[in-house]
Amino acid sequence: MNDVVKRDGTEIAVDGARLWASLMELAQIGATPKGGVCRLALTDLDKQGRDLVVSWGKAAGLTITTDKIGNVFMRRKGRNDALPPIACGSHIDTQPTGGKFDGNYGVLSGLEVVRTLNDRGIETEAPLEVIFWTNEEGSRFVPVMMGSGVFAGAFSLESVYAAKDVAGKTVKEELERIGYVGTEEPGKHPMGAYFEAHIEQGPVLEDADKTIGVVTGVLGLRWYDCVVKGMEAHAGPTPMALRKDALQVATRIMQETVAIAHRYPPYGRGTVGFVQVHPNSRNVIPGTVKFSIDLRNVDNERLDTMDKEIRAFIEKTSKESGLDISIEQVSYFPPCPFEKGCIEAVAKGAKTFGYSTMEAVSGAGHDAVYMARLAPAGMIFVPCKDGISHNEIEDAKPEHLEAGCNVLLHAMLDRAKVASRKG
Amino acid sequence: MNDVVKRDGTEIAVDGARLWASLMELAQIGATPKGGVCRLALTDLDKQGRDLVVSWGKAAGLTITTDKIGNVFMRRKGRNDALPPIACGSHIDTQPTGGKFDGNYGVLSGLEVVRTLNDRGIETEAPLEVIFWTNEEGSRFVPVMMGSGVFAGAFSLESVYAAKDVAGKTVKEELERIGYVGTEEPGKHPMGAYFEAHIEQGPVLEDADKTIGVVTGVLGLRWYDCVVKGMEAHAGPTPMALRKDALQVATRIMQETVAIAHRYPPYGRGTVGFVQVHPNSRNVIPGTVKFSIDLRNVDNERLDTMDKEIRAFIEKTSKESGLDISIEQVSYFPPCPFEKGCIEAVAKGAKTFGYSTMEAVSGAGHDAVYMARLAPAGMIFVPCKDGISHNEIEDAKPEHLEAGCNVLLHAMLDRAKVASRKG
Repeated sequence: MNDVVKRDGTEIAVDGARLWASLMELAQIGATPKGGVCRLALTDLDKQGRDLVVSWGKAAGLTITTDKIGNVFMRRKGRNDALPPIACGSHIDTQPTGGKFDGNYGVLSGLEVVRTLNDRGIETEAPLEVIFWTNEEGSRFVPVMMGSGVFAGAFSLESVYAAKDVAGKTVKEELERIGYVGTEEPGKHPMGAYFEAHIEQGPVLEDADKTIGVVTGVLGLRWYDCVVKGMEAHAGPTPMALRKDALQVATRIMQETVAIAHRYPPYGRGTVGFVQVHPNSRNVIPGTVKFSIDLRNVDNERLDTMDKEIRAFIEKTSKESGLDISIEQVSYFPPCPFEKGCIEAVAKGAKTFGYSTMEAVSGAGHDAVYMARLAPAGMIFVPCKDGISHNEIEDAKPEHLEAGCNVLLHAMLDRAKVASRKG
Repeated sequence: MNDVVKRDGTEIAVDGARLWASLMELAQIGATPKGGVCRLALTDLDKQGRDLVVSWGKAAGLTITTDKIGNVFMRRKGRNDALPPIACGSHIDTQPTGGKFDGNYGVLSGLEVVRTLNDRGIETEAPLEVIFWTNEEGSRFVPVMMGSGVFAGAFSLESVYAAKDVAGKTVKEELERIGYVGTEEPGKHPMGAYFEAHIEQGPVLEDADKTIGVVTGVLGLRWYDCVVKGMEAHAGPTPMALRKDALQVATRIMQETVAIAHRYPPYGRGTVGFVQVHPNSRNVIPGTVKFSIDLRNVDNERLDTMDKEIRAFIEKTSKESGLDISIEQVSYFPPCPFEKGCIEAVAKGAKTFGYSTMEAVSGAGHDAVYMARLAPAGMIFVPCKDGISHNEIEDAKPEHLEAGCNVLLHAMLDRAKVASRKG
C-alpha cells in the first residue's frame, strides 16, 4: 500500500464532490416529491438509470457485459487481464418509497474508484469490475436479491424469468422490453474478490459516532409463522376463567421472542413484525392470532439455540394454556461471515485515512451475501441518518460517503495490486 | 301464586312444543344453509318476520300498536285495563350470520305466555304486552338497541331516522318501505314492568349445569382506543438496545387489561379484541400499534377503579419505555342493576318448577337495559350450547327454552296478578 498512498506524499483519494454529484444525478431518475426515489426493477425508470450508469462506465473506459438475468459488469482492464477481477457493486433498483443511497452508493462509489484511478493513471495488476445486480429489492418481483442469487446459483434462471409482478408481467418479458437480457450465462463470470459499500441501514454507527463499519458478516435469520388457536367468544358474557383468549397467549410468545434475543447478545435479534387477529372485533375475545417471528444471530450455533428455545417456549405455553399453538419455519439463511482478508483490507483502508471505525455486522441481506458463496467478499458500512432506509427520508452525509469510497478504493487496490502509475 | 299454580292440582305451564314450533317457523324467514338466520333490520325479510309475529299476535287476540321507530306492542287486555301493562319482549332482527334464538326467543316466549293464558282462560288484573324492538343488533344500522334506545330517550328519533346502511338507505325510508312507521310517539307508552327472556350468550350456565339464570343486572362497560407509538425500523440492522418496538410495549398493556379484570372478580372482564400493527411487515419493527381495550364490571365503583388502574399502568409504561402511549375512552355504559322485585319474581318462578338456578349477570347489552331506565325490569337466561351466539351454529335445548318460558309466565303473573280464570 505504501507506494500507492505515499509515492507523491499524498494519499490517493477519491473525489467526494464528484461521487455526490453522480448520486444526486442518478437520484433524479424516479425522484419523488418527498426527496426519495421510486425506481422499481425492470421499469422504464430502471432502464433510464441503467443506461445512465452504463454511459458513465463507458465514458470511464469500462467494457460492458450483461448476463442473462440483466446483471451488468463494467470492467477495467488489469495489467494481467487473465486474473479474476476484483469486483465491487450493489444495485440501482429501489423500494417504491426508497431513498437515494441504498444500493446506488455501492455502484457509484465503484465508479468513483475507477474515475480516481483513471485520473491518477494507475493501472492495477488484476482487472477491476463495477457491477450492478438486477432486482435486489424484490419490491416488484420476488425473490429479493434476484440477480446475485441467480449468479450464485441460489435460483434457476427459468424460475426467476417466470416471476410476475402484480400486473402479471414476467421478469423475462420486462428484461427484454428494457433491453437488458445479456448473452452471458449467470455465474460464469470469474471473480477474485467482491466488495460492497453500503449505507448501514441501521443506527449503530451513528449511535457510536463512527465513520466506517468494518463488516465482519451478515446475520443469519430464521423466519417463522406462529398461530395460536383459542376460542372466539363474546367479551361481555364470558367470565375470565372460561376464556381461551388466543391474543393473551400470543403476547407471551411475542415477549419471549424479544427475551431470547436479549439472551444472545450482542448480535441476537428477535422481532414480531406482523400480527393478524381474528375476528379482530372490539368485543370479541380473539379466537385465532397469527404472527411472524424473526430471529437472527451472527453465529449459527447461537441461532440454532434461539430456535430451540422459542420452540420449547411454545410447547410449554401450549401445555400451560391448553391452547393449540403451531410454529412453522418459513425461511432460513445461515449467518454469512466475510473473508478474513477482505475484512482486513477494509480495516486497513480505513486506517490509512484515520477514519474512526468499528466492527459491524449486517442485519439486512445484501448481494454480497450471495457473492460470499463464490469469492472472498467484504462490505463497508457508512452511517445513515437515524438508521433509516427503505424510506424517502433516507439520508447520509457527503463526508461519510466519501470516506466509505476511499476505503473501497484502498481495499480494492489491496486485492488487485498496483501495477504501474503515471507521474 | 299458589292459586295460580295449584288450583287444579297442576302447575300452569306453557306448551314447550308449541314454543319450539314457532321458533322454528320464524327461523325459516332468512334461514341460512348452515342452520342460522340472516334477517337484518328493516329488510324485506324483517318485514316478513314482523308480519308473521303480528299475525300470531292477532290470532291470540292481541291488539297491535306500532310507534314511530317501528317498535311493535302486542297487548292483552287486563281486568283493570287502566293499569300500566306488564310487558315482555326482545327483538326479531338478527346478525348477518345469526342464530334462531337470540332475540326471537324473548318475543316468542312472550307469545307463548299469552297463548297459555288464553288456553287456561286466565284473565290478569293488569294488561300484558309482548313487544319487539326495532334493530337491536345494529348490524345494518347503528346504534345497536336502536328501538329501545329511542323509546328510553337515549337517542332522538330524528338522529336514528337519518342513520344509513352501507347502501346509503336511511332507517326512515326503510321503515316506511316495510310499512312499520307507527303513529305513537316512542316512550309515550306506559309500562308496569318489563321482563326479557334470552339465551345467555355465554358459557356460565352450561358450565355450572344450571337451567335458569336469574339475572341481577347487566355489566357496565368502558371501551377505549389505545395507541402506542414507537419507531419503525428494520428488524435486522437494529440492535435490541436501540429499538422502540411499539408492539412489545403494547403486549404489556394487553396483558395488564386481563390482569385488572382478574383483580376484580367475579364480574370483572378485560378484553383486547382488536389489534392493528403498522406497518405490519415481517421484518420491520412495529412503529405504531393501535388496539382496543374493553373493561366491564357489574359494580360501577369497581369499574371506575379498573379505569384508574389501566390509565395508571399506561402512564407508568410510557415513562418506563419512553414511548408515547395514548388512551381514549370511546364508550361508557354504567352497570344496570335490575329491580329487586323483578329479580325475585324470576327466582320464584324458577323455584315453582324446581328448576336449578344461579344468579347471573348479563355481559352483553339487551333492550332490557334501556327498559330498566323506565320501569322495574328483569331478565331470564337459559343456557345456549357452548355459550355461542351471533353465529349460525347458535343452539339451545327445547327443555331449557320451555323452562325459561315457564319462568317468564310466572314472573309476569307475579306482577300482573291473576284476576279470574275459567274452570
